[in-house]
Amino acid sequence: MGALLKFGALLLAAVAACVAWEDGDVWDYDGHKLKDSDFLALWPLPQKVQSSAVSFQLSASRFQFTHAEGSSAGSDCSILQNAFRRYFDYIFGFTKKDRDQRRRNAAGSEVLELQVAITSPDAECDGFPSLTSDESLDQPSAVLKAPKVWGALRGLETFSQLVYEDAYGAVSVHLHSLFASFGLCSTMAMNKYNVFHWHISDDQSFPYVSRMFPDLSQKGSYHPYTHVYTPADVKMVIEFARMRGIRVIAEFDTPGHTQSWGFGQKDLLTPCYTGSSPSGTYGPVNPILNTTYDFMAGFFKEISTVFPDAYVHLGGDEVDFSCWKSNPDIQKFMDQQGFGKDYSKLESFYIQRLLDIVSSTDKGYMVWQEVFDNGVKLNQKTVVEVWKSSELEEELYNVTGAGYTTILSAPWYLDYISYGQDWQNYYKVEPLTFKGTDAQKKLVIGGEACLWGEYVDASNLTPRLWPRASAVAERLWSDQGVRDISDAYVRLVQHRCRMVERGIPAEPLFTGYCRHEYSGV
Amino acid sequence: MGALLKFGALLLAAVAACVAWEDGDVWDYDGHKLKDSDFLALWPLPQKVQSSAVSFQLSASRFQFTHAEGSSAGSDCSILQNAFRRYFDYIFGFTKKDRDQRRRNAAGSEVLELQVAITSPDAECDGFPSLTSDESLDQPSAVLKAPKVWGALRGLETFSQLVYEDAYGAVSVHLHSLFASFGLCSTMAMNKYNVFHWHISDDQSFPYVSRMFPDLSQKGSYHPYTHVYTPADVKMVIEFARMRGIRVIAEFDTPGHTQSWGFGQKDLLTPCYTGSSPSGTYGPVNPILNTTYDFMAGFFKEISTVFPDAYVHLGGDEVDFSCWKSNPDIQKFMDQQGFGKDYSKLESFYIQRLLDIVSSTDKGYMVWQEVFDNGVKLNQKTVVEVWKSSELEEELYNVTGAGYTTILSAPWYLDYISYGQDWQNYYKVEPLTFKGTDAQKKLVIGGEACLWGEYVDASNLTPRLWPRASAVAERLWSDQGVRDISDAYVRLVQHRCRMVERGIPAEPLFTGYCRHEYSGV
Repeated sequence: MGALLKFGALLLAAVAACVAWEDGDVWDYDGHKLKDSDFLALWPLPQKVQSSAVSFQLSASRFQFTHAEGSSAGSDCSILQNAFRRYFDYIFGFTKKDRDQRRRNAAGSEVLELQVAITSPDAECDGFPSLTSDESLDQPSAVLKAPKVWGALRGLETFSQLVYEDAYGAVSVHLHSLFASFGLCSTMAMNKYNVFHWHISDDQSFPYVSRMFPDLSQKGSYHPYTHVYTPADVKMVIEFARMRGIRVIAEFDTPGHTQSWGFGQKDLLTPCYTGSSPSGTYGPVNPILNTTYDFMAGFFKEISTVFPDAYVHLGGDEVDFSCWKSNPDIQKFMDQQGFGKDYSKLESFYIQRLLDIVSSTDKGYMVWQEVFDNGVKLNQKTVVEVWKSSELEEELYNVTGAGYTTILSAPWYLDYISYGQDWQNYYKVEPLTFKGTDAQKKLVIGGEACLWGEYVDASNLTPRLWPRASAVAERLWSDQGVRDISDAYVRLVQHRCRMVERGIPAEPLFTGYCRHEYSGV
Repeated sequence: MGALLKFGALLLAAVAACVAWEDGDVWDYDGHKLKDSDFLALWPLPQKVQSSAVSFQLSASRFQFTHAEGSSAGSDCSILQNAFRRYFDYIFGFTKKDRDQRRRNAAGSEVLELQVAITSPDAECDGFPSLTSDESLDQPSAVLKAPKVWGALRGLETFSQLVYEDAYGAVSVHLHSLFASFGLCSTMAMNKYNVFHWHISDDQSFPYVSRMFPDLSQKGSYHPYTHVYTPADVKMVIEFARMRGIRVIAEFDTPGHTQSWGFGQKDLLTPCYTGSSPSGTYGPVNPILNTTYDFMAGFFKEISTVFPDAYVHLGGDEVDFSCWKSNPDIQKFMDQQGFGKDYSKLESFYIQRLLDIVSSTDKGYMVWQEVFDNGVKLNQKTVVEVWKSSELEEELYNVTGAGYTTILSAPWYLDYISYGQDWQNYYKVEPLTFKGTDAQKKLVIGGEACLWGEYVDASNLTPRLWPRASAVAERLWSDQGVRDISDAYVRLVQHRCRMVERGIPAEPLFTGYCRHEYSGV
């Protein structure tokens, strides 16, 4: 399971007003008076930030989000209406009680509204975010202007981060129930991740409930009722993500990592042999049967309608050849095709036919780097994911040299935990140091933080992922020059507390505390 | 923060009945019919287990815990009444609805009650558990017999582990609210830990609210209202732990690790010098002033009344001498005392006086190994805690050779996380391989799993601690011969799911699943 984030020439201008609820002094966690610049613990840091020395008040009873005159989005834009509700809760959640009576005469201006203006004729209120979604913002003022709703979402997150609680707060209101099932997507949005890479099947379990092939999950999941994703579940995840400007790219990894597929689809996997007889175990997808390709054509036709994103991830990593080598029918096929003893040619044969099948559904595809390494013919829309840390720079050079767009995940395998502040290692990565032309570097369209599930489930997912993935988010979202570890530490500590205060059990960076601690078990 | 567990010649005989709610077949997570022995995924494994081939039914509407005739405990024994309520919830929590109507005619005997008999004249219903608490159980039958209530608590946990849910279960009822504040002690009891070592102060914060010296927490805690332990909090922790047979040993670590003490107690810490002038920073407790010992006498007098356990932990680890070395008054004192340049003699001087103070409160004390290493004169009741993994065997040999009882924590620092199944490393430790007589080995009275808090708080405490600390628990609780990793894996996977089903987000050992997953964020 992972999460993608596009980076590059995105522009995010922060709302310029430094907004507080009350005027007067504000103290930090150690009791020191905060400097104006300390308020801006933004994460990830926008491309441009401009702050004023003045603080403004916000009142829960008077403040509102509005659609600016001339905006192409109105109150029928569900993406924005939904986001207004969400960010109103984030901003005023801790102090539902309006404290106007007590501090009515406080000096200082009050911000009564944030106008949101979508400047492009098509706001994309009913669309899905895509690879080319415009997430930019412009014009520093109390108006939040963006060409599309996707940029408005990022700006609303920044706006909510600009609001801090003064020393007179607060009634603690945690929003657990809201986040229970969708905590991951919520937290991704807080960190401006924009793609959820859903590695939905693996050797151990096939939890995706297919309409065409229901036996896949019925027989191949951990449990056919309690541990599956129904069509309704999948729709809800996609819609929940869309509301937050997050694309959902499903990965159905073949021909390896498919043990679980075998229980519900006869003859799909290769029978392994011991000597001249079948051993009773199975290997990768069987690439020499026409039934395999009939199945894949039907399956990926369904996938292309269930998942609206323009891309599907086809896997292609870590294919173990030993079972193929043991099978006499496979050996015969290798001879017929003239592949000799080079089983990567057999793998390419399979992938090639799979890519043709998927191309016919009008989807683009992502693949793990082995597919490129093995010389499979890829169309130019293909996104190659570089995940091996050895020879990383050479791989980036080769993939972009061949003209393919690339997503880099190698430096950010967050499942490899270690003692101490390993977020710094993720933060310090510079993804564009490989040799290559500017044109090649532009082909590196994003990075991905991966958290593989061998040792992770709902019990430890959230604290293991955050704020370590927040470090990756800033590397990918913010300007290349933003890399000061001390500055990042100060902001990330506050960003981590911001997550905790929104009900997300993000783990601590080091000693210290949050004003409102996580109160779960 | 840590958790101690006594081990040694404890005897825990499991209730012999293998108890199920319904007769008939039962399946495991992979759909295989369970063998009788598979039901007994007990953790930690009792010293003796005897099982029958017959399963018995339990009905939520008819089953009850009772006090056996002749038991020295009755319905006025709050420890047991409280435990009955707790284990009734554990056992029937998932199926509050009685399913008798549907399966009234099912064959098989029903267990209507578990009789609890406390055989010693003094059941200790109103007492506190202690180092010598008798946690043994005997007599395999539907009667749970124990000399004291403390053994009955361990037997009730085992009894509840013997009950499994059949294939017709279940309505999921999570008990989050019950565990929210006291999840740690609850889970310790599930794993038969019997001492909570509360490392209650450190350099960063002094959260203990002292009645005599309220400024210590008022000025030295992270926050004087939201991040402190009030007297009422401390009382509740001690009572909650007592109900579960868990001792609470507080550690007030001096003379090092005391930066936070300095804010609320003038002149307590040593002023450091740069050249001939004070640098403005402070070092360890100042051992040359009489006011220091006046303060300690008052403080530990209070501690001796607040914490009922017979022991208090006095710390004494990792004293940094550089500040003492820089201070001219300290140098003068060293000369006067004839300590030369040996600052460990100054440390011993301080500790010696502190021990005399604490001894006068009639408390025994625990200290970290440095205190022994530096040759401080200790009374024979002292428990020396061995925590340094280098020269571990030599240290155990020396400490026990000098006749002191020892707690071993060195191999079980759970805060040092690593990738993969590190529980196996904790499990494989054999604490008694050091050279030494049998008498010396008997002085090793227990072990401790430590989870220091630099990178841990409420957000990640539970999944980081469990089930890794469960591995330590079995090493310390169960027979020395119980060390088969494969067997342990099978039981520990089920024990981990048992914790998850009781609302505790214990992390997974590896791929796989629980029938009732953790449903929090």
